[in-house]
Amino acid sequence: MGKIICAGLGPGDPDLISVRADRALRTAAHVAYFRKAGRRGQARQIVQDLLPADAAEYPMEYPVTTEIPFDSLEYNDLLATFYDDWAARLEELAKDRDIVVLCEGDPFFYGSFMHLYVRLRGRVEIEVIPGIPGMTGCWNVTGTPVTWGDDVMSVLMGTLPESDLTRHMQGADALVIMKTGRNLPKIRSALARAGRLQDAWLIERGTMPGERVIRLQEVEDRDCPYFAIVMVHGQGRRPELQISGARISGAAQ
Amino acid sequence: MGKIICAGLGPGDPDLISVRADRALRTAAHVAYFRKAGRRGQARQIVQDLLPADAAEYPMEYPVTTEIPFDSLEYNDLLATFYDDWAARLEELAKDRDIVVLCEGDPFFYGSFMHLYVRLRGRVEIEVIPGIPGMTGCWNVTGTPVTWGDDVMSVLMGTLPESDLTRHMQGADALVIMKTGRNLPKIRSALARAGRLQDAWLIERGTMPGERVIRLQEVEDRDCPYFAIVMVHGQGRRPELQISGARISGAAQ
Repeated sequence: MGKIICAGLGPGDPDLISVRADRALRTAAHVAYFRKAGRRGQARQIVQDLLPADAAEYPMEYPVTTEIPFDSLEYNDLLATFYDDWAARLEELAKDRDIVVLCEGDPFFYGSFMHLYVRLRGRVEIEVIPGIPGMTGCWNVTGTPVTWGDDVMSVLMGTLPESDLTRHMQGADALVIMKTGRNLPKIRSALARAGRLQDAWLIERGTMPGERVIRLQEVEDRDCPYFAIVMVHGQGRRPELQISGARISGAAQ
Repeated sequence: MGKIICAGLGPGDPDLISVRADRALRTAAHVAYFRKAGRRGQARQIVQDLLPADAAEYPMEYPVTTEIPFDSLEYNDLLATFYDDWAARLEELAKDRDIVVLCEGDPFFYGSFMHLYVRLRGRVEIEVIPGIPGMTGCWNVTGTPVTWGDDVMSVLMGTLPESDLTRHMQGADALVIMKTGRNLPKIRSALARAGRLQDAWLIERGTMPGERVIRLQEVEDRDCPYFAIVMVHGQGRRPELQISGARISGAAQ
C-alpha cells in the first residue's frame, strides 16, 4: 500500500519550502497537481528544479475556474465531479505507490487539496506537510511586521459581499484580503468605506520572480492576479520608553 | 560588515523549518535567542540538533514575562529598555560578523524579534526568513482544514477583554486564539457566549514532543501553556454533488 503525501509548497520561493516537503519532492516518483487547463500550473512551476526528471506527472486540470459564477449550481457540480473523480483515481494509484500532491501555501488554509482530503480520508493513508501560507510570504516581503501585541487580524476573501468586507475591515486591526483578481474594485471600495484604504498594500507574486509590492491607492482599478493579496498592517501595542508620556524610542513605524 | 539574519523556526518540529532557515542555522557561528530567565528557551530547544557545536550563543533573557501586568508602565519600560539594550548590542556584534536570531513561528507575526527589527532597521543589514506560523502547525495537527471558500478567519489574543473576544468570535467563521495561558477561563467564557464553545479545540505543543489536541470542553479550567492555541474550524462553501438539493458527496465533515 502506498500513501498520498500532500506537500505544502509555501508562498512561491522554493527556498521557503520546509525541509520535510523538500525531501518528499526530491525523491518523488509520482506527482499530482492542480492547474488551469492549458497552463503550466503555478505549483508545478515552483518545484521545477526539485522534482526528479523521471517523475510521472498527473496534472489535475480544473474543468472551470472563473468562467462561470462560483456560487452557481453548475459550478458546484462541475467541481464536485472533478474532485470525486480525482479522489477515486488517486486512491487507485496509491494502492501500490506513493503519490506526492503539490499544494501552494499551506494545504489546510483555503487550499484545493482539502477537497480531495475530505473525500480520501479513511480510504487511504494521507500525510499532509504544512507550508508557509501565501499571506505570510506576502507580509514578509512588505518589510513590515503584520501584527503586534493585542492586534486582531482578519483574513477575508475578496469574493465576499462589499458590506461584509466593510464591516470586517472596520472591526479588525490587521487585514489580509485574498482571492482578489476581478474583486479588486470592490475590495478598494470596502477599504475606503472602512477608512483603511490609505494603509493598504497590494502584493503580487510575493517571494517569486516578478514580485510587486505597491500601495493599493497607487494601483489602477484593473484586474490584478487572483492570487495577489491586499494587506493592512496592525499597529498594536509595543514597548517604547515613556518619559512624561512622550515616546522617545526608535519604534516609530 | 556582518548582518542580522532572523530565522523563522516554524511551529516547533525542526523538519518544518524552511530550507533557507535550515541552511542558515547549520552554518551559524553566532546565535541569539529570547528566553525566560533560568529556562533553556523553546527556540533554542527547537534547533538543538541543527546548530554547530561551537556556535557562540547570546541568550536574551526577558527582564519580566507574566509577573507584572503587560499593560503597566513598569512592564512597558522594562521591556523597552531590554529591547533597546539588545538592539545596541546586536548592532555592535554585527559590525564584523553575521548573527542568526532565532524566532519561533514567523518573525513578523506577533513575534518578539519585531521589537529588535524596528529598532535596528536602517542601522544594520537585516535578513528575515519567514517561518510556518505556530497556528498553521496547530491546525494541521488537528487533521481538519481550517478555512474553506469564503470563510472569514479571525486571529485573536487571549489578552483582549472578554467583550471584544465575544464580539469577534460571533463575527468570524474560523477562529484562532493565541496567548492563552491564564486567559483560558476568559476565552472559554467568551466562546460560550458566542455559541462557539462546542466546536473549539485546544492545541498544546503542536508538532512537538508532548503534543496534545483536545476539545476545549473536555479541558479543566486550569492554566494551559501561554503558547497553546485555541481554534474553531471554518465550515465554509465547498463543492458537493447536489441532486434535488440533497448532498450526496463524501465531504461530510
